[in-house]
Formats: sequence, C-alpha cells, structure tokens
Amino acid sequence: MPTDVDVLTRYCRATAEQARAAAAVLSQLPRSAKDEWLRRSARELRDGCDRILRANDRDLQSARAEGLSAASLDRLALDPARIEGIAQAMESVAELPDPVGERIESTIRPNGLRIEKIRVPLGVVFFIYESRPNVTADAAAICVKSGNAVILRCGKEAAHTSRAIVEVLHASAASTGIPAHAVQLVEPSDRQAVRIFLRLNDLIDLAIPRGGEGLIRAVAEEARMPVIKHFTGNCHVYVDRAADVPMALELAVNSKCQRMGVCNACESLLVHRDLASQFIPKVTQALQARGIEIRADQDSLRLFDGGQPASEEDYYQEFLGPIVSLKTVATLDEAIDHINRYGSHHTDAIVTSDEQAADRFAAGVDSAAVMINASTRFHDGGEFGLGAEIGISTDKFHARGPCGLRELTSYKYVCRGQGQVRN
Amino acid sequence: MPTDVDVLTRYCRATAEQARAAAAVLSQLPRSAKDEWLRRSARELRDGCDRILRANDRDLQSARAEGLSAASLDRLALDPARIEGIAQAMESVAELPDPVGERIESTIRPNGLRIEKIRVPLGVVFFIYESRPNVTADAAAICVKSGNAVILRCGKEAAHTSRAIVEVLHASAASTGIPAHAVQLVEPSDRQAVRIFLRLNDLIDLAIPRGGEGLIRAVAEEARMPVIKHFTGNCHVYVDRAADVPMALELAVNSKCQRMGVCNACESLLVHRDLASQFIPKVTQALQARGIEIRADQDSLRLFDGGQPASEEDYYQEFLGPIVSLKTVATLDEAIDHINRYGSHHTDAIVTSDEQAADRFAAGVDSAAVMINASTRFHDGGEFGLGAEIGISTDKFHARGPCGLRELTSYKYVCRGQGQVRN
Repeated sequence: MPTDVDVLTRYCRATAEQARAAAAVLSQLPRSAKDEWLRRSARELRDGCDRILRANDRDLQSARAEGLSAASLDRLALDPARIEGIAQAMESVAELPDPVGERIESTIRPNGLRIEKIRVPLGVVFFIYESRPNVTADAAAICVKSGNAVILRCGKEAAHTSRAIVEVLHASAASTGIPAHAVQLVEPSDRQAVRIFLRLNDLIDLAIPRGGEGLIRAVAEEARMPVIKHFTGNCHVYVDRAADVPMALELAVNSKCQRMGVCNACESLLVHRDLASQFIPKVTQALQARGIEIRADQDSLRLFDGGQPASEEDYYQEFLGPIVSLKTVATLDEAIDHINRYGSHHTDAIVTSDEQAADRFAAGVDSAAVMINASTRFHDGGEFGLGAEIGISTDKFHARGPCGLRELTSYKYVCRGQGQVRN
Repeated sequence: MPTDVDVLTRYCRATAEQARAAAAVLSQLPRSAKDEWLRRSARELRDGCDRILRANDRDLQSARAEGLSAASLDRLALDPARIEGIAQAMESVAELPDPVGERIESTIRPNGLRIEKIRVPLGVVFFIYESRPNVTADAAAICVKSGNAVILRCGKEAAHTSRAIVEVLHASAASTGIPAHAVQLVEPSDRQAVRIFLRLNDLIDLAIPRGGEGLIRAVAEEARMPVIKHFTGNCHVYVDRAADVPMALELAVNSKCQRMGVCNACESLLVHRDLASQFIPKVTQALQARGIEIRADQDSLRLFDGGQPASEEDYYQEFLGPIVSLKTVATLDEAIDHINRYGSHHTDAIVTSDEQAADRFAAGVDSAAVMINASTRFHDGGEFGLGAEIGISTDKFHARGPCGLRELTSYKYVCRGQGQVRN
C-alpha cells in the first residue's frame, strides 16, 4: 500500500471504484454462482490449510514479539480444527436462502397497478475489524451472499493470515464467475487509509466497524456513510420481585459467567428490594465462587460479605471481565429507568413470573433485545436463527440487533401497469 | 428565539431534550390516544379556520412585499377548502393502523425461546421544510401517529401560518393526553439554529429535509444523525423497441406534463433507435403542443423540427418545468447505463410489451421505484397505498421510496423464555 497522501487517496478511490463495479455485477448474479463460490472457497480453505497455518505462524511470531496477551494470541491463532470451522461457516452461508430478489410485499392498487417491494443489495460495504482471522472469511461470505462487494480492512496482527485467506477466496472467485473485486483486502500499513475510505460516501454504502470501543467510536465519528455498530454492551439482568429464585440465580450466573469478554454478557444486576434479602446472598455467593468481584450499592452490601461499594461510574461500565455491578431497586420503573440511563441499549433481561411486569419491561426498556426469563447471552445472530451475522447494531436506523444477510440489503419498488396514467 | 450563540445552543438542546422526554411518553401511548388527538385537531383546525386564515394573510402580505413568485404565493396561500383538506388529511392518518407494537416476525427456536420482532418508534424527528403550510400538520400527524416526537422548522414565508396551526395541535394535545412537547415549532428567525439541531445526534434520531436541493444538500452535509432525503428527481421514461406506441405516447406525456414541478415528473426521454422514426415525431409534436422545449441528441433532432441540441449537462438536469431532454439509444443496456449514470435513482419507467426487457430493466435500473408501463407520477405514498408520506427517499439505507408511518419506525427483539441458559 502506498504511503504518500495523494497516491494513497487515488489508491483508495480506485479500490472503492473497483468494489462499486463488482457490486453492480454481484447484484445481478443468481444464487447458484454465489453458493458455488462459497462451497469452493470452503474446499480450497481446507486444501490450503498448510499455507494458511504458515501465514498464521508469521502473525503469531510478530504478536509474541510485540508482547500480545494470551487472550489476544488465542483469538489470533488458527489450527486445522479452526480452519475446518471457517470452511463450515462458509458452507452454512451457502445453505441460507438468497435474500436478493425476495418479494417483500406485493399489492394491487385499485387502478390495477401491481406494486412489488423487492429486496436488493446495499452495494459496497467497508468492513473494519481487529485480530480474529475467521472474521475475514465470515464477512466476505455474508457480504457476497447478500450481493454486496466488500472492502476488508483487518488489524495488523492478522495481516498475513487474512491475506492467505483472501487469496483462497480470490482463486475460487476466478473459477466461479464472481468478480475479482467482490472481496478486496486493504493492508493495515497506513491508518490514514481508513480515514480516506470513510469519506468516500459516493462509492461506499455502509461501514461496519468491529472491535474495541475506541475503533468503533473513531469510525462512527469519521464516516460520511451510514455505520452499523454497537459501542458497548452494558447488559443488565433485573430480578423482579415476582422472580423464581432458582431460575434467577441460574440466569444471572449464565448471563455473567458463561463467556465474559463478549458484548452480550451481563455487567450489572438489579434486584427488586422485596426479593433482595432472599436473592442477594445466594447470587453473590454463586458469583464470588466463580471469581467475580461485586461492586454494589449500600442496600445490597448489607446482605453479603466481600463486596466493594459501587461508584456512579461503575454502573456505566462494560467490564468485559470478572466484575459485576449490583443495585437494589424499589420498583420495576426504577429498574427500567436505570437501564435506559446507564445501559447501552444492547441486551437487558428481566426474570419474573408476572406477565404484566414482563410486558412493561419489554415495552419500556429501550434496547435492541429484551430477554424475559432467558440469558442475555442469547442475543446473537446464530441463536436468533439468522444463520450468520456480521455484527450487532444498537442503532434504531435500518438494522437493530443481530445483522445477517437481510440486514445488508435494501429494497426497490417495481410497479407493473398496463399503461396507467395519473389524472 | 434567542440569537446569542450560547443562549441559542442551550435553547436548541432544551428543545431537543423536551422532545426526547415527550418521545418516551409517546412510544408507550395506545393507538386510541393518538387517534383522538388527530381527530380533535382536525375539528379544531376547522373551528379555528378564521384565525389560521388571518395568520396566513400576514404571511402572504410579507411574501408579496418580498416579491415571491406567483407559484410560491400559491403554495403558501390557504383558504377554507385547503384548511378542510388539512383537517381531512389528519383524519385519514387516524384511520391508518398504528405501526407501533406490530409483531413483524415471530419464531420459536429449538430451545423453546420465542423471539418476536416488535415495531417501535424511532424517537425524535427533526423536520426542516419550506413554505407549504399544510406540511406542518401533515408532518406532525405522521410523526405522532408513529410514536415519534417532532421538532418542526418551517421556512420563514409560512411562519405565522405554521404557528397558528401548531397552536391548534397543542390545544388538542392538552385535552387528549398527548405530551405538550410531542410537536414543537422552531421559528425560522435564526439559520444558526438548524446547524445546532443537526449536531444533537445524542437527542435527535432522524432529520428529514424537504424543499429545494440546496436546503437538502446543506442538511445532509451538516447532520450528525441519519437523514431521509432525495436530492433531485431526474426521472426517465425509456420507450423500448417493443413498446406499444399509443401507450408510450400517453405515458411520456403524462409523466412529463401532468404536473411539472414535482420530483416524480419525467425530465428525460430515451427512445430505442428501432422505434425512433415512428415514435419521436409523434411524441415531440405532442410535447411541443403542450409548450415543452425539447433538448435532443443529433439522431433525434433529425426526426423533428424545433428542437435544441442537448448538452451533456442537460442529461443531468432536473428541469422542474417545461423542458425535457431526449436521446436515442441503441440497446436496452444503453438505456439502463444512461439512467444509472445521469439519473437521480428516484423513478424511472420502461414502456415495453417484452416481459424479459421489462424484467432486465427493473433489475438493472438502480432506482427507488421502477415503473413498467405506468407513469412515473405514481411514485407517491398515497398512490402506493401508504396513506400518508413524509417524503421520498433515494437512499438505500433504512427506507427507500415513499416514507410513511412504518418508515418512521425501528424494531426491537423481545425474547420470551422459561429460564433458558446458554451452554
């Protein structure tokens, strides 16, 4: 990638123009061509396993030299089983129905005009992500299956691995009639390139950042095109006064502990005061036994040992690790208000056997997903049956919640008449 | 409205915060409350007819003093019949189903989790528009019915009329339980205020500009929140070689002449060369008889008298008046490419009896609405059966084509379980 700014700008524009031209071709391709590319890519990922692992080894060596954490190294590392997983994910996208061309609605007007709302691709997606190499293949698969061209901008940690994967995708594109520029990988050698791409709103239809909050905020700030994103996942479990205690205990522990570094993990527990003396000793014991630090308000602290007082700031925090905030609330409305104020509109759960309380919570909490008597961890494209997801949105515009194939589409109206004119 | 910048900023933020609080209340209101407000507003608009006409008179006097065109004065002027039309439009919005709470989808997952996709309001809409006073009531009706609060910013020409209308809406809000700040009117005394509102993306969810291209471009440029818009409507009628000539003639004339100052009027005619010598003499005669100036390529100019040579720029033009561009094309693909290059992705029509050509045109033309054997003038919320529209979008994100009640909504996922945890 060039480094001189003028040259870099021309390079970015040329890349985006190539993507745009590829998108025009992709939008008209039948399902069979896209699925054949997905399946052939899966086979060639398996066949190319050794080459991908060698590239991954180079990335791992650099990462160790730069002192990346064990968790980061684990996210970066591939092995034959993980490559098999990437191949299977591509095959599962091939199994999904093609969203393009779907007739979303069809009406016949009194004048005989038939109005159809037909699903079409968005166009060109700019996808910016951090170190997990499987995301390279996943994003390419979802974008191409939904008829969109994609410009991938991976983090530098996974640069060699991503390049090896994209080389495989290119080879199978050439042999299945998919345009060569349907998937383009932008190397991460120059941060300036991201800023330039984010200004090309005449050529790029959508930006999707995935990674840390800093990356996402920077993209949302700079982008001139729409962005699908969530900044954070400060998710709550509210234990209502009408909660079944064993169920509440299991849901709180699962939501917090099943996997802690993810956006749909619980970061804050709210407990109705009528149930506090019964529930808080049990849940704190269960969480502490799993190594979770608990930061609580004074009312809660009186009911268990080993807690820390919570600051105002703690209730805004997405800990992404073994810490949880805890608060006693006087009413359902206080729980709803707290969640809307401190939360991140991502995923919030209520545990209750009171249907009215559940309905009020579901209506009042302004989040992409509300769970009633279920773990927050279910807010996920796979768990929702979307089959594959490119991210989760906490915005209300265009797409909210898990974004799969359909969320990468728009529609057009096609109106069929027999010569109708307007009077 | 204050003029000092700091004071103005505080005023705008306070207005938006009031809208946000009103939106939270509106989002939970039952249909009955919203419809009662709409119907009572309609009655009180009729009852307040004299007062509104006096306010309108003040606007008209200023407009005449400033030398506004006859067309602008006509757009601004109200009379009892037009006020009756505004009242009836509010009543017709009351008749429309409430989009809020609609169950868009519902699935039960293998683990027993029921996942529902429920329609919810967007929140706060900032609506910026020019001189037509009926738009004040229409926009308020559509926003409130879809559960959104609206900040209205009218053009200065209609300031007194809009204020009189909003006073009526406020009075009926007070008596029907609609929050006072559900509809707020921002007076047009300071252009700076628009810029400030457009930066409040923490409080305002959507901006909708309606008016001239300059206004819309300025809003799209400045806004930090999503914008629903179309810049221009450079709409085409393509007469295929398999067109029925009398039908093509009628559709071309209707698309161009039925109403010329609107976004879905035809601005450019494309004719397949196989039909050119038969069709062009007829259509040019019919258009010239209606006072239309024709700017054409050399191939077309040879087939009729009184035309002007078209410049490259003419093919990009939205004339909004009695001028049309005309071009002969060699193939269907040339027509599609021309439309995608010169058009504004708004409304484009094909006239043909060849179904394959119609399908290729519908798939290949990248516009919000494609008409097959029908006038471009049908691209309209009312004609599509949406009942009411707040604008037409040529963007692909969120909403494309006519934007009615549903296009002012988002959704949330509500997941009901019986204690499910993730393993």
